[in-house]
Amino acid sequence: MKWLTFRTAAGPHAGFLDGTDIVDLGPAPLQSWFGRDEAEARAMDGRRLPLTDADLMQPIVRPGKILGIGVNYADHAKESVSFTNLKAGGVQKWFVKQATAANGPYDPVERPAVSTDLDYEGEIVVVIGKRARHVPAARALEVVAGFCAGCDYSVRDWQKASPTVNMGKGFDTHAPFGPWIATTDELGSIDEIGVRCFVNGEQRQSGTASQMLASIPEQIEHLSTAFTLEPGDVIFTGTPAGVGQAFDPPRFVSPGDKVRVEVDGVGYIENTIVQGDRQTVIG
Amino acid sequence: MKWLTFRTAAGPHAGFLDGTDIVDLGPAPLQSWFGRDEAEARAMDGRRLPLTDADLMQPIVRPGKILGIGVNYADHAKESVSFTNLKAGGVQKWFVKQATAANGPYDPVERPAVSTDLDYEGEIVVVIGKRARHVPAARALEVVAGFCAGCDYSVRDWQKASPTVNMGKGFDTHAPFGPWIATTDELGSIDEIGVRCFVNGEQRQSGTASQMLASIPEQIEHLSTAFTLEPGDVIFTGTPAGVGQAFDPPRFVSPGDKVRVEVDGVGYIENTIVQGDRQTVIG
Repeated sequence: MKWLTFRTAAGPHAGFLDGTDIVDLGPAPLQSWFGRDEAEARAMDGRRLPLTDADLMQPIVRPGKILGIGVNYADHAKESVSFTNLKAGGVQKWFVKQATAANGPYDPVERPAVSTDLDYEGEIVVVIGKRARHVPAARALEVVAGFCAGCDYSVRDWQKASPTVNMGKGFDTHAPFGPWIATTDELGSIDEIGVRCFVNGEQRQSGTASQMLASIPEQIEHLSTAFTLEPGDVIFTGTPAGVGQAFDPPRFVSPGDKVRVEVDGVGYIENTIVQGDRQTVIG
Repeated sequence: MKWLTFRTAAGPHAGFLDGTDIVDLGPAPLQSWFGRDEAEARAMDGRRLPLTDADLMQPIVRPGKILGIGVNYADHAKESVSFTNLKAGGVQKWFVKQATAANGPYDPVERPAVSTDLDYEGEIVVVIGKRARHVPAARALEVVAGFCAGCDYSVRDWQKASPTVNMGKGFDTHAPFGPWIATTDELGSIDEIGVRCFVNGEQRQSGTASQMLASIPEQIEHLSTAFTLEPGDVIFTGTPAGVGQAFDPPRFVSPGDKVRVEVDGVGYIENTIVQGDRQTVIG
């Protein structure tokens, strides 16, 4: 099953793919539909529209949490020694992308006015489907709604300026994910999920979930030991080698660049970089 | 004006204080009322209840963001050199408390099953009242709805295990704040706001906003340079010296302890520590 959210004149609607059509589930947020049999029943008599006519948003419009794990592939840990505050190994290193950073699969991504060090990190993204606390790794997939492609945009100079790294990870528009949530049964073994990232058609990154230092089930166990995960919470599960900062000289992205992230069994997102402004907004 | 949220059989209601009464604004979240003249008009003909009959919750039931700044008082920076990953000075160091950590002013706070290193940090808490991006410090108070007392509970061994510190800051129940949002006009000069923290009646911390290394307006400028702040976002603005970890031996809090945080012009919160369990919750 592929769960999605699309724009309508009346605001976001939830839905799911049925062949080349979307079955429209209406304005309730997508996460409220997880696990409800009623959704599939709508495929028989619900309103439909062709996927090609739809303007897709991030599947979860406003996640309660967007969590990201640092240095979680050995090859990326190695390449990033010189520019990250995070060392691989030991306890999992978690940062947060602000909920206001959530962005659609084909929407523009801003290079902020305050930095030219905008970098990409192609990632497998997990969406939580059930309320979850103290979930052992062996049961972690029970609480997963499914998987997306995502890009963990990172403003490297802001990231490096604080060991907490959160400020460099949470700029507006910097957490695009989608294009839908593919349920676990569509992906086969989760260890074999591959992720690739391309900039203007050139492949920069490639990895598979089996290369993660902390597996997706281990991530869910660790997070839920501290706090409750809820339907619609979003986890960026780490990036393989090949980020722009690791090149010499660095190959950051600039306005006009197209960044595409593909995840096996899901599909791809593709965002174009645009120049952000510095306009004061109050109210 | 003092904005608040209280429990009813039908779920949380927003309201505000009028003398010793609460004027009941109904089930819409408190942040949707900021700046609406209609609220005060209700004082004439709205439903009321005595404050003493009300069961207060955190004023913002589910914040979109809960942000906290590390090592932001010189005396606390000095005492914490041995146990924090964060060094004072330079760029502001921001961590995140998960939205699921939000907790009421008089509600129990859990010492988690996985640690005995539970520490208190009494803080002045700011609640955002307007959508805000790229706000210069000189205009920062325009976007503030008001102030609360808060306690930034910290699980020190989890905090120390990762330079990002987020995992040690975001345990369930670890962000109590309230008891209401006192608007800026009730507090006088924001530089003179004092904060004090007591454990079982013994004063452990005392500071004033003027001692902050990054002032509240500077915090809002920095945060809003990276991302949009929204009504109901919550900022923990740093803690003065006297946390439990700084004693030798450390004086962490244990089940049964009562932790009280007072903020001038606001009031106080007081939470009792209880023992958390390790029960798996799924769904």
